Amino acid sequence: MSRFFSKKYQNLKAYTPGEQPRDMQYIKLNTNESPYPPSPSVLDAVAEEAGKLALYSDPECTELVREASKLFGVKPTEILMTNGSDEILNFAFMAFCDKEHPIVFPDITYGFYPVFAELNGIPYEKIPLKEDFSIDANDYIGIGKNIVIANPNAPTGLTLTLEEIEKIVASNPENIVIIDEAYVDFGAQSAVCLTKKYENLLVTQTFSKSRSMAGARLGFGIGTASLIADMQTIKYSTNPYNVNRMTMAAGAAALRENAYYMDNCKKIVKTREYTKRALEKMGFSVTDSKANFLFAKSEAVNGETLYTELKKRGVLVRHFSAERICEYNRITVGTQEQMEVFLAKTEEILSEMQ
Amino acid sequence: MSRFFSKKYQNLKAYTPGEQPRDMQYIKLNTNESPYPPSPSVLDAVAEEAGKLALYSDPECTELVREASKLFGVKPTEILMTNGSDEILNFAFMAFCDKEHPIVFPDITYGFYPVFAELNGIPYEKIPLKEDFSIDANDYIGIGKNIVIANPNAPTGLTLTLEEIEKIVASNPENIVIIDEAYVDFGAQSAVCLTKKYENLLVTQTFSKSRSMAGARLGFGIGTASLIADMQTIKYSTNPYNVNRMTMAAGAAALRENAYYMDNCKKIVKTREYTKRALEKMGFSVTDSKANFLFAKSEAVNGETLYTELKKRGVLVRHFSAERICEYNRITVGTQEQMEVFLAKTEEILSEMQ
Repeated sequence: MSRFFSKKYQNLKAYTPGEQPRDMQYIKLNTNESPYPPSPSVLDAVAEEAGKLALYSDPECTELVREASKLFGVKPTEILMTNGSDEILNFAFMAFCDKEHPIVFPDITYGFYPVFAELNGIPYEKIPLKEDFSIDANDYIGIGKNIVIANPNAPTGLTLTLEEIEKIVASNPENIVIIDEAYVDFGAQSAVCLTKKYENLLVTQTFSKSRSMAGARLGFGIGTASLIADMQTIKYSTNPYNVNRMTMAAGAAALRENAYYMDNCKKIVKTREYTKRALEKMGFSVTDSKANFLFAKSEAVNGETLYTELKKRGVLVRHFSAERICEYNRITVGTQEQMEVFLAKTEEILSEMQ
Repeated sequence: MSRFFSKKYQNLKAYTPGEQPRDMQYIKLNTNESPYPPSPSVLDAVAEEAGKLALYSDPECTELVREASKLFGVKPTEILMTNGSDEILNFAFMAFCDKEHPIVFPDITYGFYPVFAELNGIPYEKIPLKEDFSIDANDYIGIGKNIVIANPNAPTGLTLTLEEIEKIVASNPENIVIIDEAYVDFGAQSAVCLTKKYENLLVTQTFSKSRSMAGARLGFGIGTASLIADMQTIKYSTNPYNVNRMTMAAGAAALRENAYYMDNCKKIVKTREYTKRALEKMGFSVTDSKANFLFAKSEAVNGETLYTELKKRGVLVRHFSAERICEYNRITVGTQEQMEVFLAKTEEILSEMQ
């Protein structure tokens, strides 16, 4: 830290992204990326756009927003595109939370929420998940504070129903409810339809998971036009050209080929359920994940050991050291072939433990 | 504005990017883009990277930082890559300025500085340029506040010498001096060499102008490792994957082909001087710009009229309404052919005014 660093940020604990070791080739099941490539039209769109790089990108993302508007059935003024969904989440924390408007979220969830809160000097409170790691919707009903909930939640993969979400939103009319749907395409119900009815609801999504574009950085928010306008003010005060040309073109192409991506989601769901059953046969407890990852623990091996032993064998999964979940690992669902390797290595590790 | 918008930001006046009208094809001389395309290897690098979009980008930008490190003769730990140079500027305002550490900058300069200050609740002061629009270095010597200066300055194109910059940096050892070198490759002296000597100096640059990559969004900062580390903390608390894969690969390819881009800069400088002389012959006053734009006024036509008449004729230039400069227009230097059209249309407008 330099002696010039503002006191505001000196105690900031930044987010730690999943590791990206370069010492060998791993089967990468640690950052919830898609095992399937982007569609061919995405590659074409990117190649075409590369020739136009000398010109600034469209700050309004007109074409991309138009495609999203068609697919999600909302108006262009109800959508804001950002440099990954981390950016739309940070914009929402900035725009709607402050010292007088604290925010709450589950104790076990996406690790970036407390970082956004600390960064922006926003008081926050963590609400414990139930014993089975599910969110109790009743904890949030009429709570009178801003709320952010990942649905499905991470790293558990557990979901709230649309009815539960609506109750939370309807019972907190003076507060903003952010539903982070990074993993929604793998089996949860989207709350986008509720944005027409509730002016205090913001839904965020990403192209990183179901749309095979983690490396392109594209996320977005959907909400009433006035909420979106507030976040536009933030965007135009930080980085008006926040989405580059290539990502913008790739995103529009991906939305036009929605069926390809939804087919991939179906494959991932099938592989997820197969892997879950196989882990359960080996004695693992596995949450009922509706995301593109599994969250599992075994009495036979502690969480960190399994992570380390898998890494030695060329398979990367994600281990979190937080006390409530340190016996678990989060395992991204890859291709069927990748999961067969993961399962074989896991079986090998378990047998060596005995 | 929604009723949920934080009071902190309700009076925020966002930055207005240059217009991008879609009603017809314009000769675009209004946002200081390069008239030359990216090098062929940039296109190849982007196409190759597009196939890997399913995987997150490298949050450390290892390869890109390595190339920049070689070209600029600094260590990798002394460089931070960002989503355009607006992002590194905002990070610097966040990291080093606050209520106790105000910032100063010229009254006529890049319009985003006051926006970053307002956004982050930072007190700021504008120091008037001299009558001839030059910066008086003496105004900043020992001022005891953080400083941001664009060198060359925009929209004037005027420069400070390296000696003047060093005096400013050396005389304010308790404050950060940011030198924004967006346009440095068109004729100013870079202060990067001074970052080895002064721990309070941050130099920012962009790939948008001299490197034909405005649409890719890539900027960076160079400073001592501890300054860079502070801004890394900000980055990892907002958007760890702030630079996408395609831009990262494009940037590394562009740095490997530095000669191509420096040749383009030479062409632009030649066209700039040609255009300047032609404007002067028509009776314009033109500042001695060392950037890729000219800043010019004529007694024969007021600034806004010239802007409007040029637009009607298919040529876009940038007009600012601020009182001190409203008689001027900022004209990006395009290709020789584009500037011939601009000059012919300008001549036509002047003759109609008589």
